Amino acid sequence: MEFSTTLNNFVGIIAGIITTSALIPQALKIYKTKSAKDISLSMFIFLAVGIALWLLYGILIKEIPVILANSVSLVIIFSIIFMKLRYG
Amino acid sequence: MEFSTTLNNFVGIIAGIITTSALIPQALKIYKTKSAKDISLSMFIFLAVGIALWLLYGILIKEIPVILANSVSLVIIFSIIFMKLRYG
Repeated sequence: MEFSTTLNNFVGIIAGIITTSALIPQALKIYKTKSAKDISLSMFIFLAVGIALWLLYGILIKEIPVILANSVSLVIIFSIIFMKLRYG
Repeated sequence: MEFSTTLNNFVGIIAGIITTSALIPQALKIYKTKSAKDISLSMFIFLAVGIALWLLYGILIKEIPVILANSVSLVIIFSIIFMKLRYG
């Protein structure tokens, strides 16, 4: 593995950890307040479809950070959609 | 450009258009209702930092879809943070 590939993967992994982690406080906030009135259901449905495509893209270009980050994100997005449908 | 590169870029561009578009209904919802109570500020601040790193990653691996999608997303995320700070 070249140095540049290692650097790219490092930046990608950090980016993936941060964007995926970003979804956690939102999921927790809805869980705690049992309120999701200001949350746009369209946003999270679009996000699920888009993130699924990013996952496919990651598989196609064989970039592990893209694959990992988007897999975990997808799970959290589904939990947010579930809570939005439940709490409104 | 090989066929596989064209396919990869196509999937990446569609993924980028969808995830970036996902942010628009959320931004519009806050703008219309002037309410962002259920929105997690932490989520969007983490998202801004993470998306900035994805942008850097896109530049490093020279993938146009990654660069474009994350640039536009960053602008919309900043607008959501601005409205969250304004409307609470």
